[in-house]
Formats: sequence, C-alpha cells, structure tokens
Amino acid sequence: MIVDTLKPPYYAVIFTTILNDNLEDYLETAKRIEALAKEQKGFLGIESARNTIGITVSYWQTLADITHWKNNIEHTEARNLGREKWYKQYQLRICKVEREYGFKQ
Amino acid sequence: MIVDTLKPPYYAVIFTTILNDNLEDYLETAKRIEALAKEQKGFLGIESARNTIGITVSYWQTLADITHWKNNIEHTEARNLGREKWYKQYQLRICKVEREYGFKQ
Repeated sequence: MIVDTLKPPYYAVIFTTILNDNLEDYLETAKRIEALAKEQKGFLGIESARNTIGITVSYWQTLADITHWKNNIEHTEARNLGREKWYKQYQLRICKVEREYGFKQ
Repeated sequence: MIVDTLKPPYYAVIFTTILNDNLEDYLETAKRIEALAKEQKGFLGIESARNTIGITVSYWQTLADITHWKNNIEHTEARNLGREKWYKQYQLRICKVEREYGFKQ
C-alpha cells in the first residue's frame, strides 16, 4: 500500500530489480527480509510493485539506519544469495526525500 | 527497464499511485505524458512497475528541471484529469539521490 504519513526530510532506498527465471526460495526469503526490515530501528514504511521490473521503495529516518540495516547479517546473506541466484540486474539508490505531496479521493 | 548509467547527485521523483476502476483515456494520456517528459530539459530516465499499486520513478538533473516539468501546461492538464478521473490515491516525493549501487550478471 501507499505510505502517506511521513514528513520530510527522511530517506528513501529505491531498489529496482530484474529477476532470473529460476526463483527457488526467492518469495520465502523476500517475505522474511521484508518482515525483518520492518523490525529495524528507523524503518518508516515500504512500497512495492512488480511487472516487467520490480520497484521496492523503503523509507528510513536516517542514513545511519540504512547503513545499520545494510550490515544486518541475515540481510547480507540474503543479498549474497540474491546476486548468486535471483537477480539478473538491480540498481539501488539512496535518496533524501526533500518534498512530498499527496492526493486521496 | 532499469536506469543504470547515472552518477549522483541528481534527483528522483517517486510517484506512487492507486488507480480507479474507470480508466477511460488513461493509458493514452500516460503514454503521451511519458513521451513528453522524455523531451524535457534535465530528464535523465524513468522506471515503472505496477500490480496492486503503481510506482513510477523519474530521474532529473536538478530541482529546477522538476519544477519546470511540473509547470508544463499539458502535464498540468493531465494531472488535473488524473485527480478528477483516474487516481484513487497518489503520493509524490521529490528526492536527492546521494548514493547508488548497481549489479548485473
């Protein structure tokens, strides 16, 4: 769902991916890592969509929170598996959210 | 596709949407606006995915380029139509991309 309760400034990690054909264990691991992310200090929310490519944007209070999550052991293991098995390509961007506008019917 | 040729710092506009059921003229307009965006000064690239929600991230050289595109008349008309007809909800975030990492098999 859409995250619509945050007030800038905060940080966004834009993770854009193209998956391989063989996705053994991928969904299970992705769910586990998302659940683990939600328990981390500074986690603010997550948005995801996929068709040809996948885009997952996670939101964080500070850069230090993002670094802390990057260094989490289980997250690191999953990232290594991802490069070995699941991802054909990815791009990860760390951004500072400066302004935000929302609309709801 | 994934945009993997940019060097920070630059800007990202994260546009997260939930669509209505009646999408008359939506696809045609969305295609036209994307084509128009690509002609704008400072446009660097675009990534899009949709299933339950849609996430479109466009990349720009400067904040001024984003403001200039926001004020484009045809873009403004499409945005007004979007609020009237197509979008149940959206969130738009303007972000400075500070760091970037890529992986390709």
